Amino acid sequence: MNRPLILVSNDDGYKACGVRELAQVASQFGDVVVVAPVTGQSGMSHAVTLNHPIRLRTVSLNGGISVYACTGTPADCVKIALNQILDRKPDLVISGINHGSNSSVSLFYSGTVAATIEACMNGIPSVAFSVNDHSPEADMRLAVRYAGPVIDKVIRFGLPRYTCLNINFPAIPPELCRGIRICRQARGVWKEEFDKRTDPRGHDYYWLTGEFANQEPGSDDTDEWALANNFAAIVPVKVDVTDYLTLDSLKEWKF
Amino acid sequence: MNRPLILVSNDDGYKACGVRELAQVASQFGDVVVVAPVTGQSGMSHAVTLNHPIRLRTVSLNGGISVYACTGTPADCVKIALNQILDRKPDLVISGINHGSNSSVSLFYSGTVAATIEACMNGIPSVAFSVNDHSPEADMRLAVRYAGPVIDKVIRFGLPRYTCLNINFPAIPPELCRGIRICRQARGVWKEEFDKRTDPRGHDYYWLTGEFANQEPGSDDTDEWALANNFAAIVPVKVDVTDYLTLDSLKEWKF
Repeated sequence: MNRPLILVSNDDGYKACGVRELAQVASQFGDVVVVAPVTGQSGMSHAVTLNHPIRLRTVSLNGGISVYACTGTPADCVKIALNQILDRKPDLVISGINHGSNSSVSLFYSGTVAATIEACMNGIPSVAFSVNDHSPEADMRLAVRYAGPVIDKVIRFGLPRYTCLNINFPAIPPELCRGIRICRQARGVWKEEFDKRTDPRGHDYYWLTGEFANQEPGSDDTDEWALANNFAAIVPVKVDVTDYLTLDSLKEWKF
Repeated sequence: MNRPLILVSNDDGYKACGVRELAQVASQFGDVVVVAPVTGQSGMSHAVTLNHPIRLRTVSLNGGISVYACTGTPADCVKIALNQILDRKPDLVISGINHGSNSSVSLFYSGTVAATIEACMNGIPSVAFSVNDHSPEADMRLAVRYAGPVIDKVIRFGLPRYTCLNINFPAIPPELCRGIRICRQARGVWKEEFDKRTDPRGHDYYWLTGEFANQEPGSDDTDEWALANNFAAIVPVKVDVTDYLTLDSLKEWKF
């Protein structure tokens, strides 16, 4: 019997330590192929590359894992892996370990989560892993500690069709973590503050800056609460974003 | 009393005929400000611009509507409108009319829908409008026919917090349309076929191409069914993507 085939991607690029750590963990459970962006694609969400061509190259990685660097986005990486690189459908797609949290609404901006959703749409169980620390040297030990058991369970138990997992870890050493919790996505918003500046030619320009605001800090069933309280957080994420509760009330609108 | 303030954006750029038509319709219901990308941003999803600055400029439009062209993505357009351009929170954000359908899972790739979700996160009722015709000269009459009544109803009745509307129109003249239906998002997937070519220097490159496949063509409650049967389709879309049905079963996983 074949070992499971595991595709690994991310949005920080193939050189990021998070994706290398994740590929190493995954190699205990199956044959691993990494297809990751050449450069950082943070904040690229589910963007796809339509207006210019994509290039692929093979790069080396320790441990004999195949690594492809793709000039496209994380969603492109998954698409080209499925269509051009892999000789069979993978059993699992994992993305990350992202440098920076993708909890609450941050998942919308995340290329790492988008890679997971792209796989999920294609009927492949998938998991996004992120650590709440943007630095290139983020401590990945806690995420690594849980990535193995998560990969093992998803391969053994599967996931519901059209549902993937978004897992976030607090930026703490493993010994301070109080466990892993199944959570819902917290309601929150990024409060933007554009930093307006004037260039040497007298023209204005703006830098996007902002701060995340948790809109329900008291709710202990959310991913934000878990992270703030030293738990890891697993949120099951649906591809079907229909608001079923609102369907019927809208039917009362007469056109 | 102030007239409602309506922010209009899109992903095809401020010059697209769809956004101009939508702004014209909206101006019957309130004060309209357009903040739209300088260039086409199709397929940019919910991407935000982090690695370079954003520039804004005022451009003219017929009818005295204020139009700003932004070098960023559709999500950036909404963020900078809320933070830098508008002097109060808008009563409604509308996006489109997109040249091309954003039904089923296509909404994930859409900058037009992302602008709507961005507004929704910020507590503003919002609606995306798209026509199933990519051409710059797409017939917008059907969308225009319904945009007015939709804007009117959303201003009067509001929408549930954290729910926005994704409305798609078939590419037909208004007289052939059988009506507008409240739908759920169809399950589907883009089946990619990368077009592999070799450049004059002997290096391979790939163009992303593909075809949408409706995975439940027989279900008459979906947006895809509606479009295929000459109905317009309204899908209420949630910002909360938690799969609540899966939460409890995941709690049985022991770590």
